[in-house]
Amino acid sequence: MEHRLSLDLGERSYDIVIGASLLPRLGQLLQPLVQQQRVAIVTNTTVAPLYLERVTQSLQHVGISSLPIILTDGESFKNWHSLNQIFDTLIEQRFERSTVLITLGGGVIGDIGGFAAACFLRGIPFIQIPTTLLSQVDASVGGKTGINHPLGKNLIGAFYQPRLVVIDSDTLSTLPRRELLAGYAEIIKYGIIADASLFSLLEAHVEGLLRLDNPLLIDVIHRCCAIKAQVVAADERENGQRALLNLGHTFGHAIETLTHYESWLHGEAVAVGMIMAAELASALQICAAQDVTRIRTLIRRFGLPIVGPSNPTSSNVSIDAWMDAMSRDKKVEGGQFRFVLPQGIGKATIYRNPPVSMIAQAITSCSAKKA
Amino acid sequence: MEHRLSLDLGERSYDIVIGASLLPRLGQLLQPLVQQQRVAIVTNTTVAPLYLERVTQSLQHVGISSLPIILTDGESFKNWHSLNQIFDTLIEQRFERSTVLITLGGGVIGDIGGFAAACFLRGIPFIQIPTTLLSQVDASVGGKTGINHPLGKNLIGAFYQPRLVVIDSDTLSTLPRRELLAGYAEIIKYGIIADASLFSLLEAHVEGLLRLDNPLLIDVIHRCCAIKAQVVAADERENGQRALLNLGHTFGHAIETLTHYESWLHGEAVAVGMIMAAELASALQICAAQDVTRIRTLIRRFGLPIVGPSNPTSSNVSIDAWMDAMSRDKKVEGGQFRFVLPQGIGKATIYRNPPVSMIAQAITSCSAKKA
Repeated sequence: MEHRLSLDLGERSYDIVIGASLLPRLGQLLQPLVQQQRVAIVTNTTVAPLYLERVTQSLQHVGISSLPIILTDGESFKNWHSLNQIFDTLIEQRFERSTVLITLGGGVIGDIGGFAAACFLRGIPFIQIPTTLLSQVDASVGGKTGINHPLGKNLIGAFYQPRLVVIDSDTLSTLPRRELLAGYAEIIKYGIIADASLFSLLEAHVEGLLRLDNPLLIDVIHRCCAIKAQVVAADERENGQRALLNLGHTFGHAIETLTHYESWLHGEAVAVGMIMAAELASALQICAAQDVTRIRTLIRRFGLPIVGPSNPTSSNVSIDAWMDAMSRDKKVEGGQFRFVLPQGIGKATIYRNPPVSMIAQAITSCSAKKA
Repeated sequence: MEHRLSLDLGERSYDIVIGASLLPRLGQLLQPLVQQQRVAIVTNTTVAPLYLERVTQSLQHVGISSLPIILTDGESFKNWHSLNQIFDTLIEQRFERSTVLITLGGGVIGDIGGFAAACFLRGIPFIQIPTTLLSQVDASVGGKTGINHPLGKNLIGAFYQPRLVVIDSDTLSTLPRRELLAGYAEIIKYGIIADASLFSLLEAHVEGLLRLDNPLLIDVIHRCCAIKAQVVAADERENGQRALLNLGHTFGHAIETLTHYESWLHGEAVAVGMIMAAELASALQICAAQDVTRIRTLIRRFGLPIVGPSNPTSSNVSIDAWMDAMSRDKKVEGGQFRFVLPQGIGKATIYRNPPVSMIAQAITSCSAKKA
């Protein structure tokens, strides 16, 4: 079973192929796109032992040799140093403008490998093979690439589209459970912002999805990618509608910043961020209280956190620290906070500068003492 | 007197304004493009004392405050460290996606500042004020940005277009003579590849141009920018015709690499590179010998070098070292050398894999012993 989805971006258009057991067929899928007889594969120390050989063998079958570039796994390595490790190898191996770079891994690998492809010789073709649920439904669509800066997440990067995305649901079988759950946070997000029927489907099939039942899972991934593809096609550089995809992300990025990207997974932070956004929307009277409850309940049923980080010295992180962390977010414009807020299930909006007291209240309502 | 030229790149289109005494009118020119009340100005330790105050005052008149970011002057500082200096300041000052970055300086400043604008928050608007002749006729048109890597020039970068380019010919009055001459190398290049009448105009007015006579000079700058704008509009990402602009650059970059970017200016290296390309074209019988002579003569009359670098231990750099340096060039494709070669005055072509013996002969014909 295989779905194919086209992302329409004019000369930057590309396909997303979604299915089971795609890695062994990778050579065939890639062959039309690879002009040279070698490719670089950017992956990490966790994914390489699991899938690198399957990928290189499949490429070898069609006569393409692979140069693996294996980065240390982890968000804390999404930095200039790892980026340079890729550049150094590409330069030493005399890779050229038409050499294809493949990213094999989760969001960090896709982001940093994609950014390396965007910058090396001012841009070489790249192909994305996302291996985590989060990256399959989120990072693989839309061309956001980049690295972190010590002062904030994804502050340095580029909009750069891959030539093809291959999503093999089989790779989820080896994904640690916590990361699988984090992926479902982004899936829930699509239901909230754009698709009430997807949200209902998730409510009806929590257990099946956690068991990775197919064709259910592939269908859900496909629906998420289709929503994102539609939004990105309409607004590639995030000037308008695309910002809705950031539901939960202003709060979520603050959680990641406050905890130094160490203890929270991105999806976990977004999960709590979405509840905070729903609480804020409810306080502003643009979202019904029962929808906040549905959101919180579904997040909890998927085994995701529903309260924010605690401070070791006091029960909670101070509101000042939250506001400071949020003010560094890319969604801040003209000094104004722009929050993406749900207007019920299936619809969201951008809200500028809600009262600070209400922001604080939304944070407090999801803080540890209430857990 | 003021010329305005439009570079047609669809949604990435922008204007180039060329004239005398434009800096005092900068505020007016920029005002329609600046949404916020502050801008960042990336400049260097040489240009800042000369022109920064003129620029900041002009902006202040229209209510825009400036944050200067002053980098150390020099090609050897076109690296990740300087780039990070820009990022750090932008982040510390909480610059946002709509903040405008202005580059004030030569090619290095335009390249690194433009690349910073391309990557910061995945892209902020930037405005280029080139202050050297070379950057006015070359780097200011076409959106090539980037930094050097220890193993090669401009290996890391992006195609990223400015929103406006302001070329004030007054800034050339403070340009060191050697840099002025280097600029004329690129101007001669436009004559060779695309405009025989421009080449004749240069032959007729060497002295006037070296005196910076206007309106002659502004007219010449305008003609060069127009040629480049036309080429770039047809081929933004250098897949075809745009490569012709690299006449002299494969040899030239090798000269810069062999001398570690220390003793040769880019334009000087390109000047010798163009003669080498003409000699190679002559050996391949695609360019008449008298045209090689016209090219060499005009380059010499503009006070530019006509022989390549010597090696301190022997009379010349070895051909092996040349070939190695050239093989790292971005113009290499599928392991093949692609040389841009003149087919007389006013026309050039791309030639793949000329015999190594002829390449060596072209290099030798421009080497020190023949000076």
